[in-house]
Amino acid sequence: MTKRRSSRYLPMKLILLITSLLLLGCSPAHEPAAPAKVKNIILLIGDGMGPAQFGLLETYARRAPNSIYGERPTAVSQLMQQGKTLLSDTGPHNALVVDSACSATQLAIGEASGSEMIGLNARGDRVETVLQQAKRLGKATGLVSDTRITHATPASFAAHQTHRRFENAIATDLLHSGVDVMLSGGLRYFLPDNPALISPQQQKNIVAAGLPVQSKRTDSRNLLTVAQQQGYQLAFNREQLQTVDTFPVLGLFASSALPDALLENSQPQRTQPSLTEMTEAALNLLSQHEQGFFLMVEGGQIDWAGHNNDAGGLLHELLRFDETIQVVVNWAEKRNDTLVILTADHETGGFGFSYSAADIPAPTTLPGVAFAGQEFAPNFNFGELSLLDRLYNQQQSFYTLWAEASRNGEHGKPTPASLINAVNNSMDFRITEEQAQRILRRSPNRFYRAGHSDLSAQEFPHIHDFSAFYVYGDDVHLNLLARELAAQQNVVWSTGTHTASPVPVIVAGPDYALEQFSGFMTHAQVGALMKQLLH
Amino acid sequence: MTKRRSSRYLPMKLILLITSLLLLGCSPAHEPAAPAKVKNIILLIGDGMGPAQFGLLETYARRAPNSIYGERPTAVSQLMQQGKTLLSDTGPHNALVVDSACSATQLAIGEASGSEMIGLNARGDRVETVLQQAKRLGKATGLVSDTRITHATPASFAAHQTHRRFENAIATDLLHSGVDVMLSGGLRYFLPDNPALISPQQQKNIVAAGLPVQSKRTDSRNLLTVAQQQGYQLAFNREQLQTVDTFPVLGLFASSALPDALLENSQPQRTQPSLTEMTEAALNLLSQHEQGFFLMVEGGQIDWAGHNNDAGGLLHELLRFDETIQVVVNWAEKRNDTLVILTADHETGGFGFSYSAADIPAPTTLPGVAFAGQEFAPNFNFGELSLLDRLYNQQQSFYTLWAEASRNGEHGKPTPASLINAVNNSMDFRITEEQAQRILRRSPNRFYRAGHSDLSAQEFPHIHDFSAFYVYGDDVHLNLLARELAAQQNVVWSTGTHTASPVPVIVAGPDYALEQFSGFMTHAQVGALMKQLLH
Repeated sequence: MTKRRSSRYLPMKLILLITSLLLLGCSPAHEPAAPAKVKNIILLIGDGMGPAQFGLLETYARRAPNSIYGERPTAVSQLMQQGKTLLSDTGPHNALVVDSACSATQLAIGEASGSEMIGLNARGDRVETVLQQAKRLGKATGLVSDTRITHATPASFAAHQTHRRFENAIATDLLHSGVDVMLSGGLRYFLPDNPALISPQQQKNIVAAGLPVQSKRTDSRNLLTVAQQQGYQLAFNREQLQTVDTFPVLGLFASSALPDALLENSQPQRTQPSLTEMTEAALNLLSQHEQGFFLMVEGGQIDWAGHNNDAGGLLHELLRFDETIQVVVNWAEKRNDTLVILTADHETGGFGFSYSAADIPAPTTLPGVAFAGQEFAPNFNFGELSLLDRLYNQQQSFYTLWAEASRNGEHGKPTPASLINAVNNSMDFRITEEQAQRILRRSPNRFYRAGHSDLSAQEFPHIHDFSAFYVYGDDVHLNLLARELAAQQNVVWSTGTHTASPVPVIVAGPDYALEQFSGFMTHAQVGALMKQLLH
Repeated sequence: MTKRRSSRYLPMKLILLITSLLLLGCSPAHEPAAPAKVKNIILLIGDGMGPAQFGLLETYARRAPNSIYGERPTAVSQLMQQGKTLLSDTGPHNALVVDSACSATQLAIGEASGSEMIGLNARGDRVETVLQQAKRLGKATGLVSDTRITHATPASFAAHQTHRRFENAIATDLLHSGVDVMLSGGLRYFLPDNPALISPQQQKNIVAAGLPVQSKRTDSRNLLTVAQQQGYQLAFNREQLQTVDTFPVLGLFASSALPDALLENSQPQRTQPSLTEMTEAALNLLSQHEQGFFLMVEGGQIDWAGHNNDAGGLLHELLRFDETIQVVVNWAEKRNDTLVILTADHETGGFGFSYSAADIPAPTTLPGVAFAGQEFAPNFNFGELSLLDRLYNQQQSFYTLWAEASRNGEHGKPTPASLINAVNNSMDFRITEEQAQRILRRSPNRFYRAGHSDLSAQEFPHIHDFSAFYVYGDDVHLNLLARELAAQQNVVWSTGTHTASPVPVIVAGPDYALEQFSGFMTHAQVGALMKQLLH
C-alpha cells in the first residue's frame, strides 16, 4: 500500500527510469557488452591442497582443544565467506591425474596442457601466460614460493619448457619474462658452473646471507649478472630484502628449497624471510604500481608433506600458508579492483582421517533421556579431537627427522635405535623396535627403469600394498613411517603421489568478476577467466 | 559526462529515492526482518559421495571416450550451475570421522550429534527433525533410499534411537512419525517373527512381488498391519507402486537392501522400482499437497561400493544417483518455492585416481614447436582416459562377483580358479593365480573383540598395510581384490571405512534461501538452515 501511494506522486517516465535503473543495478545481463575488468589478480596456490587438506586446516582451527586460532577464523574461511567456492577438475590433456607443472600451466595459460610441461599447451606450443599478459598490459608482476623459483608451479607462469626438470632453462626464461618481483629459493640455478665468474660483491652478499656458493648449472652463464644488467636488485636473505623498496627484485634465499614450516618455526633467528614476509614484501612493491599487478603465491611444501605422508608436517605447512593468505585477505578486503583466487593444483597423498578397529574407546554415559539405562558405545574408534593437538605438537618434519636418524645411525643411514629416538623425540606418537625394523626394510625395486630420475635404484624401501604408487626412491621410507603411525593418528593415505580429486577454487573480489565463475570448472577455464578479467 | 547532465533534470529528492530503491533492490540486508521461507525442500544425499566421488562422476561424463553422457552435462553439474557450491565439515560431536547415522542426524536435527546415533543430539536427547517439523507444519513428507528404509540415513530423519543397529525400533518410529511416502527396502523389519500373524492378503502381495516372507523382528508385531491401520497403502514391487496415487504409502521392495546399480542394470525385467522411479513416484505424490513437502532421497550404495573399494561399482552407483538427481532438477528448475540440496554424509574408501610407476607410456611425438627434436615422455603413468570406459564396462559389483566365485568354488567359498573366472568374466581387468592367492589369504584377526558386530571373527582376510582400517570381516577380501587391480586401474584407496574429508554442499533455489548458505559450513549448520527456511 505504501508503495502504491508513493508511486502516485511520480510521473510515469520517472517510474520507467527507476525501474530501468533497478534492473541495471541488479542484473549482470544488463551491464555494458564489454566485459568488466579487474586491476589486480592475486592467485594463491596451495600445492597438493585438496579438499581433505582444506578440511585438516579448518578442523584443526575450529576443533583442536588447544587450537592456536582460539575463536579466530582461518584466512581460508574468511575468503570463503567473502567470495564464492567452486570445484575444479585439474586433469591434464589426455590423462586422469595431473602433476604440478601441467596444473599450474593450465591455470597460467588458460588452455589444456600435457603432463610435466611448463607454459605449453597440449600440442607443445608456447602460450602467453596470464603473468606475461599482465606484463604486456603494463602491469607489475610477481612470483613468490616457499620452494624454489624454478620449481614447477612458479615456473609455469613465466617459462616455456617441454619438461619441468629443465630448471636451468627455466631460470633463463624467468629473467627473459622480466617478472618484476621473484622471491623464493633456487640460487643454484642462477650461479655459473665456474665460481670464478661470480663477482666479488655477489660472492660477498651470498656468503653474508649464509648461503652456499654452489651451482647446478651446466654452463658458465651468471644469471645474477644478467639480472643486474636488466636492473634487478638482488637479495639473498631477509635483511637484504628489507632494504629493497622498488622492483624489479630477484630474491633467492636458499640454494634449493626454503626451509619447511617446522624448520622455519624452530629458528627464531632465521635469516630467510618466511612465506608471509615474502608475500608482504611483494604486495608492498607491486601495489605501488599504478597500472595494477598480477601476483602468484605458492604454499609449495604442502605437497611435499603430502608426498611423504607426513600428517604433522602437513598441518604445519597448511598453517604457514593460511598465515600468508591472511596477509592477502587483509590487503584485498577493502578493495573493489582486485580478484583473489585460492586453489590447489591437485591433491597429494590421498590424506584422510579415518575410523578404525584400533583402540576403540570404552563405553561412557550420556545425560540425555534417550540413553536412560544404556551406554554410549560406538562400534569403532572415530578419532579423538586431541589428535589435532598431538599432530600440531610434532617438532620436525619427516624429512628432517630422517636426516637426524641418519646422522645418528651408521654409515649415514638410520639404525632402528636412531630412528626410534628421532621419532619418539619429535612427536607425541611412538614407534617400537619391530615397527622401526619394518620402516627400514628394503626389497628389489619392482618398477626399475634404467636412467629414470626416480626409478633407477635396484632396491626400494619395502612398501607392501599399492606399491606402484610409491615412486620416489628412498623417501618411501617416510611413507613406511606414516603406515606405522596410522592407527595411532587415525590417519590414512592412499598414495605417495597425487590423486585426481577435484579441488576447491575460492574466488573473492568484485561481483562482476565472481559472476564469471560458475558450475563444475576445469583449471584451464579458471586460467582463461583470469586472462579475460585482467585489464 | 552523460550521467551528470541527466541528473540536472531530476530533483534531489528523486535522486535519493532512486538511490534508495537501487540499494533496496540489490541488497539482501534490506529485506524484511522476518526470514523468507521455502515451500518445499528436497534433500539429496549421496552416501559416501566425497569430493573424489563427485570427480569420478564428472570426469567419466566429460572425458570417457565412450561416455554415456555424450555432450549432455551431469545432473550434478546442472545443479551446480543453477545454484551455489559450499564445503561442509561432517564431523560428529567430539570426534573426527563421522558415520552415516550421525551425519544424517546432524542434517536432520540441525545440531551436533554423537557417533552412530539416530535422531538424537550429542547429549542423547531426542530432537525434532526437519521432516518432523515439516509434518507439524502440515506439509507432506517422504523418504526414498536404495538401501532399506530402516538404514541409518533415512532413519535419522524420522526416528530417535541410541544406535543405528536398532532397526526394528526404527521401523516402529518411522510409522510413529507418519512419514507420508516411504519407498525403499527393509520388509524384514516390518514382518512379525511369527509368520502366522501375517494376513493372507499381505502374504499374497508379498509373494506376488517375489519377496521372501522373512522377519528380522524379535517380537510378534506386524508393522504392515499397523501401517494399514494408519491408512498406509502397501506396495511390494514396481507394479503395485504404479497403482498408488495418493499418500500415505509404504513401499518395501526388498527384504533387506534393494539391488545394487549393476544388478539393477542387468535385470531389464526387474520387479523392483529403481531409485529414479521411486523418486518420480514420491515427487508425483508429494507435489499434490498444497502446503508443500520435505523429501529426502538417498543414493545409499555409493557408500557400499566405497567400503568394498569397488571402483567400477562406485561409478555405476554414481550414474544411478545422477539419473535420480536429473529427475529432481527437471522437477524443480522452473519453480521458485523449492530448495534443492545435494550433499554427502561423508567420503567412503579414500578413493582416488593416482599416478604410478607401472606401465609408463612409451614416449611420443607432439606437433608443437617447443618439442622440435624432443619427445613427449612424462616420468610416470598418469592414467589413460580409456580407463573410464573400462571401469564402466564392469558387469557386476564386487559383492555379486564374490557370490559367484563362492557358488562356483568349494564349500561355499571361492577357490583361486573360481575367483579368477568371476573377476576376468566381470571386467576389463585381469588377475593372475598369484593375485587370486593373495586375495584369498587369511590371518588371525589383530583387532578381535568378543561379541563385536564386526570384529568377533578369529580370522580376517589378510590386509597388510593400514589393517586397522579394514574392519568389516570377510568383506575385506573385496578390499584385497581392489589392491590387486590398483596398478591396472590407476586407482588407489586409503581405507575400508570413511574419511573425514569435507564434502560439497550444492544448494539451488530462490536467492533469499541461497544467501543463507555461506563460508565453510558444518552439516549441523546446513540442517539448522533447512529448519529455518522451511515454512
